[in-house]
Amino acid sequence: MLRLEGVFPPLATPFKHDELDVDALKRNIRKYNAAGLSGYLVLGSNGEGVYLNEKEKRLVLEAAREVIPEHKVYMAGVGQESTRETKRWVRIAADAGADCALIVTPHFYKGMMTSEALKKHYGAIAESAPIPILVYNVPQFTGINLSPSVIEDLAGHENIVGIKDSSGNIGQLAEIIRRTPSDFAVFVGSAPVFFPALCVGAVGGILAVANVIPETCVSLHNKVKEGKFEEAKRLQYDLIPLARWVTTKRGIGGLKMAMDEMGYEGGAPRQPLRRPVEEREDLEKLLVPFLDERVM
Amino acid sequence: MLRLEGVFPPLATPFKHDELDVDALKRNIRKYNAAGLSGYLVLGSNGEGVYLNEKEKRLVLEAAREVIPEHKVYMAGVGQESTRETKRWVRIAADAGADCALIVTPHFYKGMMTSEALKKHYGAIAESAPIPILVYNVPQFTGINLSPSVIEDLAGHENIVGIKDSSGNIGQLAEIIRRTPSDFAVFVGSAPVFFPALCVGAVGGILAVANVIPETCVSLHNKVKEGKFEEAKRLQYDLIPLARWVTTKRGIGGLKMAMDEMGYEGGAPRQPLRRPVEEREDLEKLLVPFLDERVM
Amino acid sequence: MLRLEGVFPPLATPFKHDELDVDALKRNIRKYNAAGLSGYLVLGSNGEGVYLNEKEKRLVLEAAREVIPEHKVYMAGVGQESTRETKRWVRIAADAGADCALIVTPHFYKGMMTSEALKKHYGAIAESAPIPILVYNVPQFTGINLSPSVIEDLAGHENIVGIKDSSGNIGQLAEIIRRTPSDFAVFVGSAPVFFPALCVGAVGGILAVANVIPETCVSLHNKVKEGKFEEAKRLQYDLIPLARWVTTKRGIGGLKMAMDEMGYEGGAPRQPLRRPVEEREDLEKLLVPFLDERVM
Amino acid sequence: MLRLEGVFPPLATPFKHDELDVDALKRNIRKYNAAGLSGYLVLGSNGEGVYLNEKEKRLVLEAAREVIPEHKVYMAGVGQESTRETKRWVRIAADAGADCALIVTPHFYKGMMTSEALKKHYGAIAESAPIPILVYNVPQFTGINLSPSVIEDLAGHENIVGIKDSSGNIGQLAEIIRRTPSDFAVFVGSAPVFFPALCVGAVGGILAVANVIPETCVSLHNKVKEGKFEEAKRLQYDLIPLARWVTTKRGIGGLKMAMDEMGYEGGAPRQPLRRPVEEREDLEKLLVPFLDERVM
Repeated sequence: MLRLEGVFPPLATPFKHDELDVDALKRNIRKYNAAGLSGYLVLGSNGEGVYLNEKEKRLVLEAAREVIPEHKVYMAGVGQESTRETKRWVRIAADAGADCALIVTPHFYKGMMTSEALKKHYGAIAESAPIPILVYNVPQFTGINLSPSVIEDLAGHENIVGIKDSSGNIGQLAEIIRRTPSDFAVFVGSAPVFFPALCVGAVGGILAVANVIPETCVSLHNKVKEGKFEEAKRLQYDLIPLARWVTTKRGIGGLKMAMDEMGYEGGAPRQPLRRPVEEREDLEKLLVPFLDERVM
Repeated sequence: MLRLEGVFPPLATPFKHDELDVDALKRNIRKYNAAGLSGYLVLGSNGEGVYLNEKEKRLVLEAAREVIPEHKVYMAGVGQESTRETKRWVRIAADAGADCALIVTPHFYKGMMTSEALKKHYGAIAESAPIPILVYNVPQFTGINLSPSVIEDLAGHENIVGIKDSSGNIGQLAEIIRRTPSDFAVFVGSAPVFFPALCVGAVGGILAVANVIPETCVSLHNKVKEGKFEEAKRLQYDLIPLARWVTTKRGIGGLKMAMDEMGYEGGAPRQPLRRPVEEREDLEKLLVPFLDERVM
Repeated sequence: MLRLEGVFPPLATPFKHDELDVDALKRNIRKYNAAGLSGYLVLGSNGEGVYLNEKEKRLVLEAAREVIPEHKVYMAGVGQESTRETKRWVRIAADAGADCALIVTPHFYKGMMTSEALKKHYGAIAESAPIPILVYNVPQFTGINLSPSVIEDLAGHENIVGIKDSSGNIGQLAEIIRRTPSDFAVFVGSAPVFFPALCVGAVGGILAVANVIPETCVSLHNKVKEGKFEEAKRLQYDLIPLARWVTTKRGIGGLKMAMDEMGYEGGAPRQPLRRPVEEREDLEKLLVPFLDERVM
Repeated sequence: MLRLEGVFPPLATPFKHDELDVDALKRNIRKYNAAGLSGYLVLGSNGEGVYLNEKEKRLVLEAAREVIPEHKVYMAGVGQESTRETKRWVRIAADAGADCALIVTPHFYKGMMTSEALKKHYGAIAESAPIPILVYNVPQFTGINLSPSVIEDLAGHENIVGIKDSSGNIGQLAEIIRRTPSDFAVFVGSAPVFFPALCVGAVGGILAVANVIPETCVSLHNKVKEGKFEEAKRLQYDLIPLARWVTTKRGIGGLKMAMDEMGYEGGAPRQPLRRPVEEREDLEKLLVPFLDERVM
C-alpha cells in the first residue's frame, strides 16, 4: 500500500554545461532524505521533463531509484500526448522501480480533449499500467482544466488512486474532495494555497518550493495534522513570497537559483528557460526566514 | 466605528409583476434580523442593481434603512462606470443613511482600466465620500481583476476600509491579506470557499447563499472563531452544492427560488434573467439539510 | 427604407469642464455632414454612453436629430442591461427621431446570458420597438460573444435588420454573412479589418476612426465598391496605425485628442478615462498622411 | 531560392492498426502532386507530430523526400520545447532533405515564454540551422500568441524567412505584413479566412482542408492572383463549412475521414484523438460541392 500523503518535491533536474547530471540529482535526493518528506516526484513540470530526450528520462528514472528509500513514495511524471506513448512510458517507469505514475492531461489538441476523450485516455492507461496512476491537472501549463465531474469518474477506477491539482483553485479542490472517495488522494500543487488546501482536506502537497525549503513545508503539514491552525497559517504566510518567486514569478530558473542558495545543486535550466540575472539580492531577502534550513 | 466582520447577505431585490416591491424587501430584512447576521448589502450584484433605475435605487436605499437595526452594518452597492456618477451615488447612499459604500470596479472600457486609472477612480471617490468605502472585485462579472498590489495601494487611503473579493481565488485573497493592514477588512464573496477564506484570515463573507440559509453561514463563521475547524469544515461541505446552485449554476433566478422555499420572498428576477423551470425537485433536495432554518 | 451601408462614425460626446456640450456635438456633426458618411451612431461605446445619465442621454438624442440630415441614417445606441429598460430607451430614441437602434448584448450577469436568454431579450425588444433594431456584438467590452448561430436566429425577426460586429474576427464575420439573408446588414466595428470585412461582404463599417478621418474611411469603402482592391488595400494599410491608436492603444481619450487635431471638438473624456499625456508628437506623426482631410 | 507562396497541405500521417504507414503517406503525396500545390508540410499539427516517436518522425521525413518533387517546397515541422532539441531536429530534417523548417513556439512553460525568451529561442535556432526557418504561431494549441512586434524582430534575421499564422486573426495578420519586409513570407493557417488573408497580402495558405480539396484551395489562390475577387469570394464561402468541420469541429479524426471520402488514405488518428462516429452523412453533404475533385 502506497502511503499517499504529506509533502513531495517535484524534483528539479540538474544539468552541467547543459548535459544531464544524474550525480547531482542523487546528491540532492540524499540531502532531501533527511527532511521528513513523504516521497518524490521525478520528471514533473519542475523537472523539465519536456526538455529531456528518451535516454535522459531513463537515466533520471534509474538514478532516482538508487537513492530514494523504500519507505518513501517514488512517483514518476511520465504522461505523454498520445495514449500509446503514455502506456509505454508507464511501463518504463514501473520497470525502473517507480511506485506510481503521475499523468498530465494531454493538451496539444485542446479542442478535441473532451471529457469523453480524457476519460478514455486515463482509463486505457490505468487498465494497462502495472503501477497505480495519479492524474495531474495543471491548467496554467496545459490550457486544460479537468472538471471535478471527470475526476469523480476517474476516481472510480481502482488503479487511479489520486490527483495533483495545480490549478490553485481551492473551490475546485474542495469540490474534488467532496466528489471522490476518502481513499482517493488529493494533493495540491500550489504552495501559496497549501494551508487552505489542507484545511479543506487535501492529503498533502507536491510543491516546487519543497525543493528549496522541504522542512518548512513538512512542518506546515504537521501543524495542520496536530490541529495547530494558527501556527500553520503563520508558516503559510511566511512562505508565500518565496513560493511565488520560484514558480509564477521566476519559474524553474528561479527555483534552481534558490536551491543553490540553500545548499542543493540547482544550476541553470535548459533554454528557452533561463536563470534570473541580477536578482540574487531579492532572492536572499526572501530566504532570510529559512536560513537555518540550509544544508551543506 | 464600523464592525466590519461576519456574514452579510447581498440582499436580493423582490419584484411583484416586474415592479419593485420594497415592502417585500422590508419583510425579508425583518426576518433576517433574527439570524445573527452582521449587516446587509443592498443594490449589489445579487440585488439586480444594474436592472434598477435611479428612482428605484433610491427607494431601495430608503426602505432598507427603515428596517436595518442601528447595530448592524448597512452597506450600499453604488459603484457606477464613471467617477462622477459614483461620487454622486455615494452621497445619495450616505444621505439615505447607509454606513458604508461598496464600489465595484468600473469595467466597460476594460482595456483602459489600468492600475493607474483604477487607483485614481477609487482615490477620488474615497476623497469625496462622506462614508467609508469598500472595494468590490468581481472578475467573473466585470472581466477585471484588481491585483493585490493595487489593493495594497488603495488600503493606504484612510477612507478605503475594506474589500469584497468574489474572485474565488484563495491564493489572491491570502496575498491581499498579507499586503494590507490588519484593520483593512477583507471579505470573501464566494460561499464555496468561505471556510478556507476564514482559515487564511478573511474577516467574513458577503454571500449570496446567506439570503437563503443565513444561520448556517453565521454558524460556520462562529465555528472558525471558536477554533472548531472540523465542524466548520463539515458545514462548508454541507453548503457547497446549494451555494453553487444559487450562484454559478442557476444565478439570481435560482437564488430567489430558494428564498421562496425557505420562507423569504424571492419571486422572479427581471429579464433577461429568469427563474429556473422544472427544477424544484433538484432544489428541494439541496435544501434538505437546512430545513430547520426555514422561517415563517 | 433605411439605406444600411457605408461608413458611420460612432460619434464621440464632447464635454466642457466635464459637463455635456451638445453644441459642440452639433458643430461636429455639421462638419461631418460634408464627408460622404452614410449616417451616424450616437450614444455608442465611443460616445461614452455608459457615462451619461438619463437626462444627458435625452439631450444627446435630441441634439443629434437637429443636425443629422433626413437622407442620412440616424442610429442610437440605447441597449441597457435589462429587457425592460432597453424597451423603454428604444421608445425614447424613436420619439427623439432616431431611425434605428443599436442594442449591445446585456452582459453583467455573464454566466446567465445563454443563447436562449439573449434570443428572448432581443426578441422582446424587437417585438415592442417602433423602429428597426440592430444587434451590437463587442466581446472586448462585454465579455460576451454572440455566436453566428444565435445571430442567424435573430436575423429571422423582421424588425432585427442588422448587426455591428466589433469582435475583429473576420472568420466569424464571414460566418455571420453566410448564415443571414442578403438584406441583413452586417457592419464591421473594427477599422483595422475594414478592408477584409468588405472583401468578404460586409455592407460597411461603424468605425471609431471615422470621427477623425471620415473621408478616408468613405473612400476605402468606395474603392471596394468600384472593384479597386489594390487601392483599397493601400488605404487600409495607411489607416491601421491611427485606427489602433484611437481604439485599443489609447481609447476614447486618444480618439478625442485626434479629433481636436483634425479640426473637430474632442476635448477630454470623463474619468476614469483620461486624455493621453505627452503623446501629441506620436499622434501628429500618425496623422501626417491625412492632413488634407483636416477641417476648419 | 525557395518559392514560398501558394497552397501547402499540412500532411496528415496515416496509420495502419495504429502503426505508422509511410507507404500510405507516399501514395497520398503522389496523388497530391497532380493538384497544383506549391509544396508540403510534414510533421505539423495536422500530421500528429506530437504523437510520433523519434524513429517514426525520421521515417516520415525520409518517406516524404522520396516522393516530393524537387520543384515543390518541402517543409518540415520540427519545433520542440527546448532550444537544444529543436536545433537537433532541424539538422535531422535538413539531412533528410527538407527545404525549410517550420518551428512552433515552445509553450509548456507559458509564463516564462516572454518576448525576450522567444526571440533568443528562434535566434539560436536560425543561427545554427542549415536550412531556412519559418515561425509557426498557433495560439489555439499553444496558448501563446507571437506579437507582431516580436515577429518584426525575428524577420530581421536572414535565416528566418516566413511565418505560418494560424490565429485566424486577420487584423494581426495584416499587422505582421505591415511590419515585415516584402520578401518575408506570411502564410495563413486557417482556411475559413484564406480569402481575406490573401486580400490583405498573405502569400498563401498552409491549410488542413488542402488535404481534402487541394484543387479548390489552389484555385482560390489563383483567382485572387488574377484579380477575380468575386469568384475567389464564392470559393471561400463554398469551403467554409467543410474547412470548419475538419478543424475546429471534428479535428484530425474528421480530417482523415474526409480524406478517405475523397480518395486519399486517412484512416484513424492515434488516441486520445478519434474518428467521428455516425457522422458520415453530415460529411457527405459537406463534400457534395467538391465531388469532381475526388481522386482514384
